[in-house]
Amino acid sequence: PFRWQAEPDLPEPKVHEWIRTLEPSAAHDTDWSRIDAAILGVPLSRSSISASAASETPEEFRRAWRSFTPYNLEEDIDLTPLSVVDLGDVRQHVTDISRCHQSIREAAATMQRHHPSTLPILIGGDHSITAMSIMGIKDTRPEKSIGLLQLDTHFDLRSLEEFGPANGTPVRNLIESGSLRGSDVWNIGLHGFFNARSLRDYADRAGVNWITMKEARRIGLETAVHSALTQLEKKVDTIYLTVDMDVLDLACAPGTPAGAPGGMRTEELFEAVRIAGTHPRVRGMDIVCLDPRRDINQITIKTGVHVLLSFLTGFMQRDKA
Amino acid sequence: PFRWQAEPDLPEPKVHEWIRTLEPSAAHDTDWSRIDAAILGVPLSRSSISASAASETPEEFRRAWRSFTPYNLEEDIDLTPLSVVDLGDVRQHVTDISRCHQSIREAAATMQRHHPSTLPILIGGDHSITAMSIMGIKDTRPEKSIGLLQLDTHFDLRSLEEFGPANGTPVRNLIESGSLRGSDVWNIGLHGFFNARSLRDYADRAGVNWITMKEARRIGLETAVHSALTQLEKKVDTIYLTVDMDVLDLACAPGTPAGAPGGMRTEELFEAVRIAGTHPRVRGMDIVCLDPRRDINQITIKTGVHVLLSFLTGFMQRDKA
Amino acid sequence: PFRWQAEPDLPEPKVHEWIRTLEPSAAHDTDWSRIDAAILGVPLSRSSISASAASETPEEFRRAWRSFTPYNLEEDIDLTPLSVVDLGDVRQHVTDISRCHQSIREAAATMQRHHPSTLPILIGGDHSITAMSIMGIKDTRPEKSIGLLQLDTHFDLRSLEEFGPANGTPVRNLIESGSLRGSDVWNIGLHGFFNARSLRDYADRAGVNWITMKEARRIGLETAVHSALTQLEKKVDTIYLTVDMDVLDLACAPGTPAGAPGGMRTEELFEAVRIAGTHPRVRGMDIVCLDPRRDINQITIKTGVHVLLSFLTGFMQRDKA
Amino acid sequence: PFRWQAEPDLPEPKVHEWIRTLEPSAAHDTDWSRIDAAILGVPLSRSSISASAASETPEEFRRAWRSFTPYNLEEDIDLTPLSVVDLGDVRQHVTDISRCHQSIREAAATMQRHHPSTLPILIGGDHSITAMSIMGIKDTRPEKSIGLLQLDTHFDLRSLEEFGPANGTPVRNLIESGSLRGSDVWNIGLHGFFNARSLRDYADRAGVNWITMKEARRIGLETAVHSALTQLEKKVDTIYLTVDMDVLDLACAPGTPAGAPGGMRTEELFEAVRIAGTHPRVRGMDIVCLDPRRDINQITIKTGVHVLLSFLTGFMQRDKA
Amino acid sequence: PFRWQAEPDLPEPKVHEWIRTLEPSAAHDTDWSRIDAAILGVPLSRSSISASAASETPEEFRRAWRSFTPYNLEEDIDLTPLSVVDLGDVRQHVTDISRCHQSIREAAATMQRHHPSTLPILIGGDHSITAMSIMGIKDTRPEKSIGLLQLDTHFDLRSLEEFGPANGTPVRNLIESGSLRGSDVWNIGLHGFFNARSLRDYADRAGVNWITMKEARRIGLETAVHSALTQLEKKVDTIYLTVDMDVLDLACAPGTPAGAPGGMRTEELFEAVRIAGTHPRVRGMDIVCLDPRRDINQITIKTGVHVLLSFLTGFMQRDKA
Amino acid sequence: PFRWQAEPDLPEPKVHEWIRTLEPSAAHDTDWSRIDAAILGVPLSRSSISASAASETPEEFRRAWRSFTPYNLEEDIDLTPLSVVDLGDVRQHVTDISRCHQSIREAAATMQRHHPSTLPILIGGDHSITAMSIMGIKDTRPEKSIGLLQLDTHFDLRSLEEFGPANGTPVRNLIESGSLRGSDVWNIGLHGFFNARSLRDYADRAGVNWITMKEARRIGLETAVHSALTQLEKKVDTIYLTVDMDVLDLACAPGTPAGAPGGMRTEELFEAVRIAGTHPRVRGMDIVCLDPRRDINQITIKTGVHVLLSFLTGFMQRDKA
Ligand SMILES: [Ca+2]
Ligand SMILES: [Ca+2]
Ligand SMILES: [Ca+2]
Ligand SMILES: [Ca+2]
Ligand SMILES: [Ca+2]
Ligand SMILES: [Ca+2]
Ligand SMILES: [Ca+2]
Ligand SMILES: [Ca+2]
Ligand SMILES: [Ca+2]
Ligand SMILES: [Ca+2]
Ligand SMILES: [Ca+2]
Ligand SMILES: [Ca+2]
Repeated sequence: PFRWQAEPDLPEPKVHEWIRTLEPSAAHDTDWSRIDAAILGVPLSRSSISASAASETPEEFRRAWRSFTPYNLEEDIDLTPLSVVDLGDVRQHVTDISRCHQSIREAAATMQRHHPSTLPILIGGDHSITAMSIMGIKDTRPEKSIGLLQLDTHFDLRSLEEFGPANGTPVRNLIESGSLRGSDVWNIGLHGFFNARSLRDYADRAGVNWITMKEARRIGLETAVHSALTQLEKKVDTIYLTVDMDVLDLACAPGTPAGAPGGMRTEELFEAVRIAGTHPRVRGMDIVCLDPRRDINQITIKTGVHVLLSFLTGFMQRDKA
Repeated sequence: PFRWQAEPDLPEPKVHEWIRTLEPSAAHDTDWSRIDAAILGVPLSRSSISASAASETPEEFRRAWRSFTPYNLEEDIDLTPLSVVDLGDVRQHVTDISRCHQSIREAAATMQRHHPSTLPILIGGDHSITAMSIMGIKDTRPEKSIGLLQLDTHFDLRSLEEFGPANGTPVRNLIESGSLRGSDVWNIGLHGFFNARSLRDYADRAGVNWITMKEARRIGLETAVHSALTQLEKKVDTIYLTVDMDVLDLACAPGTPAGAPGGMRTEELFEAVRIAGTHPRVRGMDIVCLDPRRDINQITIKTGVHVLLSFLTGFMQRDKA
Repeated sequence: PFRWQAEPDLPEPKVHEWIRTLEPSAAHDTDWSRIDAAILGVPLSRSSISASAASETPEEFRRAWRSFTPYNLEEDIDLTPLSVVDLGDVRQHVTDISRCHQSIREAAATMQRHHPSTLPILIGGDHSITAMSIMGIKDTRPEKSIGLLQLDTHFDLRSLEEFGPANGTPVRNLIESGSLRGSDVWNIGLHGFFNARSLRDYADRAGVNWITMKEARRIGLETAVHSALTQLEKKVDTIYLTVDMDVLDLACAPGTPAGAPGGMRTEELFEAVRIAGTHPRVRGMDIVCLDPRRDINQITIKTGVHVLLSFLTGFMQRDKA
Repeated sequence: PFRWQAEPDLPEPKVHEWIRTLEPSAAHDTDWSRIDAAILGVPLSRSSISASAASETPEEFRRAWRSFTPYNLEEDIDLTPLSVVDLGDVRQHVTDISRCHQSIREAAATMQRHHPSTLPILIGGDHSITAMSIMGIKDTRPEKSIGLLQLDTHFDLRSLEEFGPANGTPVRNLIESGSLRGSDVWNIGLHGFFNARSLRDYADRAGVNWITMKEARRIGLETAVHSALTQLEKKVDTIYLTVDMDVLDLACAPGTPAGAPGGMRTEELFEAVRIAGTHPRVRGMDIVCLDPRRDINQITIKTGVHVLLSFLTGFMQRDKA
Repeated sequence: PFRWQAEPDLPEPKVHEWIRTLEPSAAHDTDWSRIDAAILGVPLSRSSISASAASETPEEFRRAWRSFTPYNLEEDIDLTPLSVVDLGDVRQHVTDISRCHQSIREAAATMQRHHPSTLPILIGGDHSITAMSIMGIKDTRPEKSIGLLQLDTHFDLRSLEEFGPANGTPVRNLIESGSLRGSDVWNIGLHGFFNARSLRDYADRAGVNWITMKEARRIGLETAVHSALTQLEKKVDTIYLTVDMDVLDLACAPGTPAGAPGGMRTEELFEAVRIAGTHPRVRGMDIVCLDPRRDINQITIKTGVHVLLSFLTGFMQRDKA
Repeated sequence: PFRWQAEPDLPEPKVHEWIRTLEPSAAHDTDWSRIDAAILGVPLSRSSISASAASETPEEFRRAWRSFTPYNLEEDIDLTPLSVVDLGDVRQHVTDISRCHQSIREAAATMQRHHPSTLPILIGGDHSITAMSIMGIKDTRPEKSIGLLQLDTHFDLRSLEEFGPANGTPVRNLIESGSLRGSDVWNIGLHGFFNARSLRDYADRAGVNWITMKEARRIGLETAVHSALTQLEKKVDTIYLTVDMDVLDLACAPGTPAGAPGGMRTEELFEAVRIAGTHPRVRGMDIVCLDPRRDINQITIKTGVHVLLSFLTGFMQRDKA
């Protein structure tokens, strides 16, 4: 009889075979201590200032990573020894944004409380989720300090009063809620005419550390990242990495709501993220503000998946002694 | 010296010259009794079930109507005797949807209370705004009954509990809040496989009147509209017309979040709306669920503006005796 | 604790919940006599004369039907009593087209032999698969005659010698291989300048029955379909329905390799297919030549899914006495 | 040895094989009395009011007609007995529009003077070329009257003083230059809000005959065309047909600079043009205002070629007795 | 009562609030000595060799700069102390290109004569406008020499006889009209296979100075720009900067009529333009050949606005002593 | 009389005038010893793993090179002294891929046998053609060794058993068929997560030499290319250059079936190919896996033509002593 479609026998899994889907029903029977990282989709973008379909990114990631292999040829790193699970999406509400945010915060808190050895990776969604993710971690361990390494074109320090917990305000939200100190934030990649002067003034008053693209290129982007990590490790217990895809040059990442010319190059971002992945104190990360509807030929979504895998490459290279 | 760009001298205005912009500051000094219709942009689409940029439609309308003249050649109707003002947009909040909705409701109530002789036309935004618009009217005159003529592919009767006041629930919202009776709703244009059977059952239990595309074509779409208006005029004080752009066939209106094949033709919609415009009891209308980001070659946005002008053509033809 | 994403409780399934996936491993333990219809993806388009990504259609169907409900509002037909399974894709080879075709033929033969009471629905792929599908049926029951109802802009009678079993030759292939008689073919929807005169001459010599779009509109498309079915039921044991998506007007179905202006309207096709579905002797069908890469805003893919559901609506309406 | 690419042996030519290219150098040795129709590309669109790439249409026609056969299946008309030549493009200047126009006028005059039995078909370019084409004919035979059958969404009667010989003014240009009388113009297809009332007044004062889409559909478009031809044949020696592609509904022809919703359907236009082709006094035609850069999936360009072939189908059906 | 849409209270203006629109009627009452720079839209692209919608760029600039702030974070330069006005568009004719050009020339002359302390910035339009702009300046002060710093993929030295004052000829036009000397032209950014050898020979004979992309990268683009400015300041009174957007790599600027692979990077252009802005003798500039219709996701239009703001950043940094 | 369109008199040809088309009928009367290079289109992409329209590339090349001049300004190299002919396309079959491959192999063999002094340049088509091209050369001169310089994101060493001679297997095909040794293959440009670890292991076992993007950038891409050529010239008689367009970063070359972020920059590729062109032992080359249907604004197709001309620039610079 005829054969239905079957995957050919391969000596190794592809990315979608290597990352296991963990159903909620199986969560309790799982030995979480052996899970290195867990991916949580956060399909929320109604909190975005401008219209965004970033809510579709988690599903697009799952489709796009089928065309990647879990082997980084340039670094000669095989990711398959890592145990990575996909937890699916955090449930979101259609019209109650605060309920959405609460769910994200609880998800992060739950992960931190019950599965502290598993590194959470959130796939946004818009940048508002970062505030919720870090607050959730903080809720669980309020005595521990958290630092933020942010790769972004923007400060994300706009007025909470005016916008609420939107994608333009997460860092301000974190500072003003006491979840972290301004001086424990490092933002790399800011550039151009996309941050009002008053926001820069706020950043300086709050002690936020920042390195523009121009400066980062002058000293070397790798140096900039290493420097930020070195500073942070002296001051905080946990470092959280947040990658706003609009840090990339608009021509390299057409699929973001606020993309701008003059940004980071793709290979620069991959290397920055890989380096962050190698640092043992980086214990959470997210990728946000990728709008698949604006994307062209999947340039941005493939780049987003590559960011994820670059981070995991660094994680594999991490000295776990 | 050189001349700057100037509009050529024309014997007649274009649409953007004919529709006057009314600044908030001038509202008090305006003789509203001489204003026939007022356009209110409602840039809200974060209450949409699927990601939508319908919030950009009001601004796109204002750009697109520059290429229209206020003269309907086929009906030989000159719209310029009508006094139509553009009030700008109802202010929306970034992360608090209930505050957005409240503003719309207040806008509709204010218009009804202070300028009852001016017909309000809302340019959405998603379909959730229709519930707010009608509730606002109802707030002002609770003793008056309102009927709804809805042109839509969908019932918009999904669960309020599950979705809240989203674009899938406005009619249910209106019925369950007592703003109108199910039997005072006429929905024309439903078709295909886009309404769960349970929603149809709800519609029937609630007494909602509905005519599918197939039935409407059998009896004639004009007949269907006339019949709905005739029924409604016997039962309600005020008729509100809502046009969900997704009632159109997907090939005729690619720019909607939930477009479907098998829908209404463009010229059918224009005629349906013109007829509704002629009915003296139609005292409010809106156009919703047009997503300019999904649009192609401005097909949908131009069609939306045409719907607006077709309605005003009917309004001019209305027997005002 | 937080809740992962969950489907809301609904009283009824959506299309992707209603159509069950049947894994090959479970095929033997299945009571096929209770399965009304089985969907087989046929991801083959390297046999297309012009470059085509029709091979991606089965997977796109599976994504697109998530936005459909199994309830036809216009016909008031609930499809959920039907048992429909998705068998996945027939395995295709990358560089050996004859092996691909052999697999399709075997699949059709196997279905016919072992599960004769289950109606097979093939989702192409290009039109070459129709020849294989019918040959497979014929292989199993060589004594039974098969008739073909073809909705197409083209005769598909091009030279086998020149092209081999390509998407331009399936009907010629079937006639010349003796799988069916030319006089048992009815082609409805031919139009324009897209069939060489010599092909029409071949059609006439072979006795192929054909009705152009212009003629079909003159007599009524429904009449044309009924007439073809009535003629066929007198002459053949089994009728096979094949829908080439390029029968649609190019503006209604931009996503086909050989789309042309002047074709069928969407709602005409839905009705034609529904009528074919009602005929008890129609025991196989396919949908072919839909190229998702050329599609715009999913117009064609949504239309393709609608064709499938329209056929099943007719199937539900079929008098099974 | 290997064979280079070769066209397969076919019993009949394709359109690009049937339409012969006539090089300027061969023009003198040609027996023009045996040439039925001659195609002239007119790659001019810098005279378009809004930016347009209609200048690219002649070349796109030549590419697109490779996918058409010279056989109309619906009419059972084989075009190959017609002798049709492609004369290439009328040379255009980059910055001197009046020189461009003069070349077109001379081309039309030359054709009329030296090859009066060959029907000229101009492929624009924007609508300004129609004025030049008719003026060229008039230059040659000033004593003969010319009538115009125009299929258009617009009157093309805008102010010559303001715009000069642009795509918005050709009919006014013809009337005011005395090339034809307003009463010898028939415009079919006007609709919507795209002609200022003052233009309609001008049309009426000038005696221009016009039938809107709505009226044409009421009486039947075929009736409208027949009626216009019947009126014109009583009054003029020669009828010139001009097809502005924007007469089509925007969804049917996305590739025009001023497309609008609510226009003619594709099959309606094909039939209208075919009927015009059958009239023996129609001795010139053009197709204008098709902008390939705005086109989607070649919908408009394929439709344009189909218009050309539909006209020639009528020409074949013409009673030449 | 409800509040209409209002801009939130901000401590600083956005770009569209900072750049004031100056109506023609107010021009006489303006103290021009306090205006640092004036923007003039030049919506002319019918003089482009290939079809171009560069005429739409001025309006697109005005829309796009709403998403920029007048603060350059990387340079820590606040632009708001600069007084910049938008004068609107130079009026253009539809069919008389020489009249268009004359208006531009007069506009430049008028600015130079009456408002010499205000730096004019022209937003094209195609490159033909540069010749007119410089000729206008020269008309006013014929005794002063002008030098040209051109960032372009092309020499723009094609034959005036053949093309007239088109977008391929402005530099030749300037040289042959005696408006400037070939040796006072510096072209940086030429590359690839896009300039015929004869044009390069013409350039060399005329003494035009040029630095290819490859050479510019070898010596450093900043060095190249500084070097050109240093040479020019020795020889001319006024330096005019012209930025042809096609100097950018096609992937960085998809929206140009003649874009090519292998060009300048976005950040290189920003820096080149900023440096030019710092030079006190640069007293005029333009941005040309940006076609918004070819643009993708606003990459090119945002880049164009960024070029404008980068130039103004340099202007702020200029030593005005 | 009017003038038809004529090319303006230029002192030099454009690319499409310089590259002569050689008709098969004229092949025998041609003095091949004076032909430096011959272009062969290979319109085959049905052997591509994923759907690809690379078969349309040869025709698109011929259209696109009309906008290039045969003069490299950056290198000051005039290509016109080279004699380059376009032989048209190798004939391909619709459904028999092995016959397609055989034709390509014979074409390459014929060129090698009869016209050994003419360098063959194949324009694909997918990467499967490279195996056929090299096998054809080997067929003619089995005693001569061939080396491969491959610029690619992928090894192209996937299983022949599973895929057959597809675009994922050409290098394996060549090694396993004994056409060349693994150690005579140099692959430059590999990167990211797009090669399974088992393929890398195969490469190492087979002795394939490879340099990743990261390594190539570390040592300098030019150094990498020179080094590969230097190694190869010691070991093989003939070097064949194959350029898989997906070696480019996805943002630089959106039009490939398997494009990936993190790849080579456009100008890097141009330089790499030019260097390869200078090496006297490079006696064959091809450009493959460019899918024009996925392209955006012709970025990739223009880049492909530029690659061809860059190679010929190197060829002109070659020391032919
Ligand atoms: Ca950002
Ligand atoms: Ca951000
Ligand atoms: Ca709806
Ligand atoms: Ca609705
Ligand atoms: Ca077909
Ligand atoms: Ca077919
Ligand atoms: Ca028109
Ligand atoms: Ca017109
Ligand atoms: Ca240029
Ligand atoms: Ca230029
Ligand atoms: Ca590859
Ligand atoms: Ca490859």
